[in-house]
Amino acid sequence: MEINIQKKVLEANETQADINRQFFKKHNTFVLNMMSSPGSGKTETLCRTLGKLMPGIRVGVIVGDICTTNDADRLEVTGARVTQINTDKFGGDCHLAANLILDSAQRLGCGDLDLLIVENIGNLVCPAEFDIGEDARVVVLSVTEGEDKPLKYPLMFRVADVAILNKIDLLPYLDFDAGLAVDNMKKVHPRLPVFEISAKTEEGFEPWLEWLKINVFEKTGTGL
Amino acid sequence: MEINIQKKVLEANETQADINRQFFKKHNTFVLNMMSSPGSGKTETLCRTLGKLMPGIRVGVIVGDICTTNDADRLEVTGARVTQINTDKFGGDCHLAANLILDSAQRLGCGDLDLLIVENIGNLVCPAEFDIGEDARVVVLSVTEGEDKPLKYPLMFRVADVAILNKIDLLPYLDFDAGLAVDNMKKVHPRLPVFEISAKTEEGFEPWLEWLKINVFEKTGTGL
Repeated sequence: MEINIQKKVLEANETQADINRQFFKKHNTFVLNMMSSPGSGKTETLCRTLGKLMPGIRVGVIVGDICTTNDADRLEVTGARVTQINTDKFGGDCHLAANLILDSAQRLGCGDLDLLIVENIGNLVCPAEFDIGEDARVVVLSVTEGEDKPLKYPLMFRVADVAILNKIDLLPYLDFDAGLAVDNMKKVHPRLPVFEISAKTEEGFEPWLEWLKINVFEKTGTGL
Repeated sequence: MEINIQKKVLEANETQADINRQFFKKHNTFVLNMMSSPGSGKTETLCRTLGKLMPGIRVGVIVGDICTTNDADRLEVTGARVTQINTDKFGGDCHLAANLILDSAQRLGCGDLDLLIVENIGNLVCPAEFDIGEDARVVVLSVTEGEDKPLKYPLMFRVADVAILNKIDLLPYLDFDAGLAVDNMKKVHPRLPVFEISAKTEEGFEPWLEWLKINVFEKTGTGL
């Protein structure tokens, strides 16, 4: 019974995700869905990334949170067009569903954007199940979270197109084996590209930016 | 429509939670539900806590994960009776529901335990909505996650009876204002007791252990 309900919710979401995909294709916008646990550094990574991409690439951001506009406020400082979704209106939803994304993209005036980034709600489980019509999914794991997280939350790493291992500036102070963490990611998703970065110091940023620029360029023809 | 389904699921869970409560009352077992994001240090905190409590207090642990028995394996080393729930069998559920807890408690042979700790699935959203018939809820936040998490995930901090701010050994290497984090917890839950600890170094452990021992003693008459 419960499984059937879940299936119907996911099917309805899938239908809406297809509509989103057509909308983004029509507007020639590359859409990146950014997911992670709370506190892995999505917003800081995004702030730094936007600083490097703009104004050559025109970027918009949809930020999902249950409450507060903290992340949107931080991202607006970059000059990007930002809109916030607070899911507390929808019962404190733990993920962003496809229907919320289309509304927000339209509110954002998606027409002239090359890149739309969706900063999903901090949760390593539920957002992985909800297609939002994106072109690519990035999962962010921070080195403070433990090497075994890809094995414990495999769906998230399986559906990701790229992974970021963040906060590597903290490695000297932790018992964290970055090689083991990457190996664990590859166990659940063998060909997953992984970028080891520090959003704080911008160490390791170039390969990540390169990956993003190439992907935006391939869809939109902009930014290289 | 979706809200009605959600309501029914939560109502069914609530009924089961009441059954659990009666079961635990009959067996004179104090039940602690431990919740946090992935990687905030629940397992390490538990390992160290069990080392200090046993054998004066008889402890069992139910560990929830989507996949792997990593945490259960770590906890078994302490000598505690441990059982694992993997929710991938149930569609990768993002929380532990009350029905799973009763089954596991019975499998664990709950009859002679003073304290049953449920290490919930790493998720700062969904587990907060599911009563499992526990006596108290502890939320663990690590200092690497950002001070604003209590404001962004308020339900979790509102339903908690006690909070742990973990990994304070890392404070010298972070731009993290512990005072602000505690203030934010108190904004959503004014009288929430907060213990600042390092599970790694055991700094700050005494007040936390004291809180736990007093609570176990008040229900079971054991351990002080």
